[in-house]
Amino acid sequence: TQQLLSGRAPRPRPFRVTNSERSVKKGIIAETLEDLMNKASDSLGVQCVSDLVLDEDGTGVDTEEFFQTLPENAVLVVLEKGQKWTPHPCRLQHRTDV
Amino acid sequence: TQQLLSGRAPRPRPFRVTNSERSVKKGIIAETLEDLMNKASDSLGVQCVSDLVLDEDGTGVDTEEFFQTLPENAVLVVLEKGQKWTPHPCRLQHRTDV
Repeated sequence: TQQLLSGRAPRPRPFRVTNSERSVKKGIIAETLEDLMNKASDSLGVQCVSDLVLDEDGTGVDTEEFFQTLPENAVLVVLEKGQKWTPHPCRLQHRTDV
Repeated sequence: TQQLLSGRAPRPRPFRVTNSERSVKKGIIAETLEDLMNKASDSLGVQCVSDLVLDEDGTGVDTEEFFQTLPENAVLVVLEKGQKWTPHPCRLQHRTDV
């Protein structure tokens, strides 16, 4: 009923996942947060995913509910234990140019 | 049923492919990821395609599922072994101009 009420029944959607260095980025289809975690760790060769955060501002995606509100092709950073999200290099450059 | 549910049955769609230097760009009709890989390598004269990534942000298109979510005329960069995606020159130039 929760899903019916919110109108957001899980369905396969495209996402883009990258590692903490943003050196590799992969397109992944996932239905649930757990599904994305598993596929992302396989695709990026990350042994143990500690956290999944939004590339744009480092927001942690901890719950299935919040995950289901993300738009298609949202970019997510896969963090391993000890790794932290850092601001996007392009934006830093943009800011220092201003 | 997966395809019926998502409404993304493979059908021939147009794409644009370019090489890692972005010196040549070709329009190609492809139905599947493998189809596009084959036609792109023929069209661009690339012997062995190592990776296919989105021109816009370097996202690797590794799976048929993700490929099927791409919009028509998506621009893809064909990489050979050892080649890497680099940000689009126009955007870099734009940033340094600011």
